Amino acid sequence: MKDLLTRLPTTAALILFAYATIRFLPRLPFSLLVYVIASLAAVEFLRLAGPAIRSLPLILTNGLIVAALFTFPQLPVKEMLAATVILNGLFFLFAVRRSEQLPTFVHDFGVHLAAVFYIFLPLYFMYDLHQLHPNYLFFLILVIAIGDSGAYFVGVAIGRHKIYPVASPKKSLEGLIAAVLTAAPAGWLSLWLFPLPIRPPTAILSAALVGLVSQLSDPVESLFKRAAGAKDSGTLLPGHGGVLDRIDSYIFCAPLLAALAHIVW
Amino acid sequence: MKDLLTRLPTTAALILFAYATIRFLPRLPFSLLVYVIASLAAVEFLRLAGPAIRSLPLILTNGLIVAALFTFPQLPVKEMLAATVILNGLFFLFAVRRSEQLPTFVHDFGVHLAAVFYIFLPLYFMYDLHQLHPNYLFFLILVIAIGDSGAYFVGVAIGRHKIYPVASPKKSLEGLIAAVLTAAPAGWLSLWLFPLPIRPPTAILSAALVGLVSQLSDPVESLFKRAAGAKDSGTLLPGHGGVLDRIDSYIFCAPLLAALAHIVW
Repeated sequence: MKDLLTRLPTTAALILFAYATIRFLPRLPFSLLVYVIASLAAVEFLRLAGPAIRSLPLILTNGLIVAALFTFPQLPVKEMLAATVILNGLFFLFAVRRSEQLPTFVHDFGVHLAAVFYIFLPLYFMYDLHQLHPNYLFFLILVIAIGDSGAYFVGVAIGRHKIYPVASPKKSLEGLIAAVLTAAPAGWLSLWLFPLPIRPPTAILSAALVGLVSQLSDPVESLFKRAAGAKDSGTLLPGHGGVLDRIDSYIFCAPLLAALAHIVW
Repeated sequence: MKDLLTRLPTTAALILFAYATIRFLPRLPFSLLVYVIASLAAVEFLRLAGPAIRSLPLILTNGLIVAALFTFPQLPVKEMLAATVILNGLFFLFAVRRSEQLPTFVHDFGVHLAAVFYIFLPLYFMYDLHQLHPNYLFFLILVIAIGDSGAYFVGVAIGRHKIYPVASPKKSLEGLIAAVLTAAPAGWLSLWLFPLPIRPPTAILSAALVGLVSQLSDPVESLFKRAAGAKDSGTLLPGHGGVLDRIDSYIFCAPLLAALAHIVW
């Protein structure tokens, strides 16, 4: 109950903030907003993954490259992503000065790659969706929130079969099925509240898929927390943990919905 | 001397093989060849980086996604690269079954990302260059080989100032400068032997840049070897070490030359 009271003001603020920014922000400020959110997530990710050699400026620079290639579609994607990998390599070439730094080098290198490719790249599909139609983001938020709630309540009530005991011991197969079954009508609801140029069956099927993948995206982020022995990714949002905790489902679901919207529909 | 005798037949075979394939292979078989070379490099990389949880099939599948997006340029690059990241995440979600696997999880996850983004993505620019004009590959090979030789002989003779003591203790600033100065005329030589639609000053400047970056690409791969306590990345090529040792310079130089050819020239 106390937890709920801590959460409620933050939840209300987040909903208002999301609604206002998605509805009213023009293209470039919205891209900047995604960059800021992804950067906060990357900072928390860096803290969790705990590399011995670390460079936040490097990660933010690489994030800027990702931001640029989404914001200006005429830029060459493959070349610019290769540039982030080369930048990472050159940084480590000069950062590893003592042989005692070698044992953790592969870990550290991997963390900096992951900050680009596991955090910035997937999250920037939120900008992509906003460009296609702002209502795709309302679709994503509604479907994920309702699917999560469905998974939570059904999981607490009748959850028996654990799927990922290490990553998320509380998550169950029953909850996963509930997420799919509640996300599907949420897609229809979203289409009704926030119109999109797609047919209802498409919206319902896509929402079911997003609901499923959301339940898989969240525990992958949890693995990074468990590996660090942390409960939350951060403390920025009272009662909600960190930014990364709030957006862990978007890491897999934003690219999924963008791919569906771009390619399948 | 004995070393030279072991190396010579392999060197001759490699030159013949490179010449014949670059000159005569059509588009799709050449793409397959790049995929095979990158896969061999990835296998060696995996052995060096030594993740506790590993999946070669996952890496080869992700490599196939990279291969597809270079070979069929109409495919959506960002979406497909996000798909490789999601595949990695899902694999680990179900591979981490016991909490004893958590301490190395970040390392293992990073290694699988690196196999895609540090090995397959950069190396596939060799296919890209081949598509632009096969002679770009002769340019790359000649410039890197001559620059390396220049760095080696000058480094042995007068090398004093170490640049990366941990990664490549034998490499010196004098060798680096020699690489740039010998790579530059090698670019002119290559243009004369293997014509390209670029002007000689462009070729010479680009060759100097490739010569420089080649000397930075090689020691980054060495860091992975040092971290593993290995001298060579593998034993496939008698006297030359592994495949990764042979192509370490191409990891940074292939995307660089492709970017120069696509964007700057």
